[in-house]
Amino acid sequence: MQQLHPDDVIWRNARLATMDPDHSAPYGLTEHCALVVRDQTILAVIPEAEIPHGHANSIDLAGRLVTPGLIDCHTHLVFGGDRAAEWEQRLNGVSYQAISAQGGGINATVTATRNSTPQALLTLAQRRLQRLMNEGVTTLEIKSGYGLNAEAEEKMLQVARQLGEDHPVEISPTLLAAHAVPVEYRHDPDAYLTLVCEQIMPALWQKGLFESVDVFCENVGFTPAQTERVFQAALALGIPVKGHVEQLSNLGGAALVSRYQGLSADHIEYLDEAGVQAMAKSGTVAVLLPGAFYFLQERQRPPVEQLRKQGVAMAVATDYNPGTSPFASLHLAMNMACVQFGLTPEEAWAGVTRHAARALGRGATHGQLKARFVADFIVWDAKHPVEMVYEPGRNPLYQRIFRGEAV
Amino acid sequence: MQQLHPDDVIWRNARLATMDPDHSAPYGLTEHCALVVRDQTILAVIPEAEIPHGHANSIDLAGRLVTPGLIDCHTHLVFGGDRAAEWEQRLNGVSYQAISAQGGGINATVTATRNSTPQALLTLAQRRLQRLMNEGVTTLEIKSGYGLNAEAEEKMLQVARQLGEDHPVEISPTLLAAHAVPVEYRHDPDAYLTLVCEQIMPALWQKGLFESVDVFCENVGFTPAQTERVFQAALALGIPVKGHVEQLSNLGGAALVSRYQGLSADHIEYLDEAGVQAMAKSGTVAVLLPGAFYFLQERQRPPVEQLRKQGVAMAVATDYNPGTSPFASLHLAMNMACVQFGLTPEEAWAGVTRHAARALGRGATHGQLKARFVADFIVWDAKHPVEMVYEPGRNPLYQRIFRGEAV
Ligand SMILES: [Zn+2]
Ligand SMILES: [Zn+2]
Repeated sequence: MQQLHPDDVIWRNARLATMDPDHSAPYGLTEHCALVVRDQTILAVIPEAEIPHGHANSIDLAGRLVTPGLIDCHTHLVFGGDRAAEWEQRLNGVSYQAISAQGGGINATVTATRNSTPQALLTLAQRRLQRLMNEGVTTLEIKSGYGLNAEAEEKMLQVARQLGEDHPVEISPTLLAAHAVPVEYRHDPDAYLTLVCEQIMPALWQKGLFESVDVFCENVGFTPAQTERVFQAALALGIPVKGHVEQLSNLGGAALVSRYQGLSADHIEYLDEAGVQAMAKSGTVAVLLPGAFYFLQERQRPPVEQLRKQGVAMAVATDYNPGTSPFASLHLAMNMACVQFGLTPEEAWAGVTRHAARALGRGATHGQLKARFVADFIVWDAKHPVEMVYEPGRNPLYQRIFRGEAV
Repeated sequence: MQQLHPDDVIWRNARLATMDPDHSAPYGLTEHCALVVRDQTILAVIPEAEIPHGHANSIDLAGRLVTPGLIDCHTHLVFGGDRAAEWEQRLNGVSYQAISAQGGGINATVTATRNSTPQALLTLAQRRLQRLMNEGVTTLEIKSGYGLNAEAEEKMLQVARQLGEDHPVEISPTLLAAHAVPVEYRHDPDAYLTLVCEQIMPALWQKGLFESVDVFCENVGFTPAQTERVFQAALALGIPVKGHVEQLSNLGGAALVSRYQGLSADHIEYLDEAGVQAMAKSGTVAVLLPGAFYFLQERQRPPVEQLRKQGVAMAVATDYNPGTSPFASLHLAMNMACVQFGLTPEEAWAGVTRHAARALGRGATHGQLKARFVADFIVWDAKHPVEMVYEPGRNPLYQRIFRGEAV
């Protein structure tokens, strides 16, 4: 290791779950090691024995567990209103049709989001963000997609950016203008996609408001042909893509995402063998969203065994949204991924660290405790990473470190 | 209403979800009302307009929602160790047999509990209790059943009592010595039951350490005949009974509990029509435990529609325990009861208030905001009770009132 500066900070006497796949131990667990932090970055992971004598700037973690900061790579955190009352109606036997007819469903959220001021959206999103941060999240993705016009999509992405400026957290914003067909284009979805591809996408990309483009490819969303149109437009601008695919049926969306070298294919309950192979080939991450699976009481599970066999990286995210996954808990999502989908706790941890980082194009800098990675990490009053997965409400978070600072 | 004393406390300007079934509004919701508290008890619920002018001792709740304190009527809160590592092994493909052979399963918890000091058990249980209290629980049941001998069962019940003495919460302790056959009686379960019926039960009853007797009636527990033996012994001492029944198969356990006028039949996924009718007749409460259903990924749901039709009261509880429901969250249990079993949010609320109270023999004093009921209530930063059910991690608890005191 290079010479230490006096103001390098050494976080010592910790049990590190590095999540480094090059470590042979499960979770990349190492004992008696220390993290050296310089300039918001991990300079090195060193054995306790190699800590220079007399280095003043060190913090004793008393044997606590340290993991990378958690990464939630799929959320719809910014929106107006909530849908609790609608959910209650459903449970009281009111039909989906009746709720739709009264302006419910996603349209209710679109209307509430369009009618909200940026400040009102920010206030609501801050509360949701705080819950994720309390659990150790240091990076999260936020999608637009409840605006469905240029002005409201921009408003959502501006709020997402503001969240990152106001809080010790990194935001990865995604344009999901192709989330649903807005009511005013109900009879002409393709005209809406023209608006998305020719105006909304280039204009908001020009303003630097998002990092990637997402499409909801489903019978109740957009067709594969429509999805590809959006991907083509993104490709022309050099924007990475991803997709909500194979959630309720198999339309071959994951293979389509893979053909465009997409970052991730998300949901994928109905993914088939060909889709798995396509993802393996393109290195597209499989983002599992067990909260939505639970909330909708789906029966078809994602093909975890095949994904494992083919070496497709699996991420786990909250999919936080008011209609199908109102749970701002990444610990609960990890538990649900294990209980419902049969992931191992170590896979669940990889899913909210290094694999989630890859899904956000940050695989070389985020999600591991390793030299040259960002100094985002969590100190836990726990012995082992399984504890947070086994008992999601427990949350033994002791300290949250973002870019080297305890926050 | 009778004349107020100067030191009666008036909690005013609140939205009350009284959970009083005599109110016609859902949740017994009333606006512009106030709670009058005297001597740890609700003296009256009065309209704002009837608050005497100049009454000094009043607290303005600023329009917040008030509900009865939550009641968790089925927990195994006191135990040694945890089973996270074992759960991880299972998810990594180690068989149940192999885990049993290495001393895992319930025997691991029995061993850890027997080997723990009361102080160690208390410390662990306090952390779990704190999480329930943070969500608004003011009364909870705690079962023995990991001691399985006179000394260790007594130790567990003493710890349960101590929890109630140390914290602003009411504990209802249950003797569950017939939880499993201890290894030393592996070849003679009936000899163990003789010990339970003739020694453990009378001795600990004599010491006032529990309120009711529970039996795990199941193929992997005790037969109906064995269960009845325990109930007979309880009956002879005048002790109310209840049962873990029909969780994994239909042995007619609920009907048996009903024949003994049992307080509750718990789990009941495999309950049949005859069992429902028996419960309706005896007024036995159906305690739904959706956390265990989720954690074990069961498929058979309790017969909610039939229970409704026959007017059987349904309670909802955490079943907090290390093997099958490691979730110390009653809000999550309410959500799971709705999502998995199709309860309405109002039924879930009744399940953790007035129906849970009945399951603990406290139906006339707990679980409603009503004259002569205990002054245990929760002030929420929320508009409507559905919010806690829809989004369990949110927990908008503002203030917890136990016996009239904010704690
Ligand atoms: Zn989504
Ligand atoms: Zn139980």
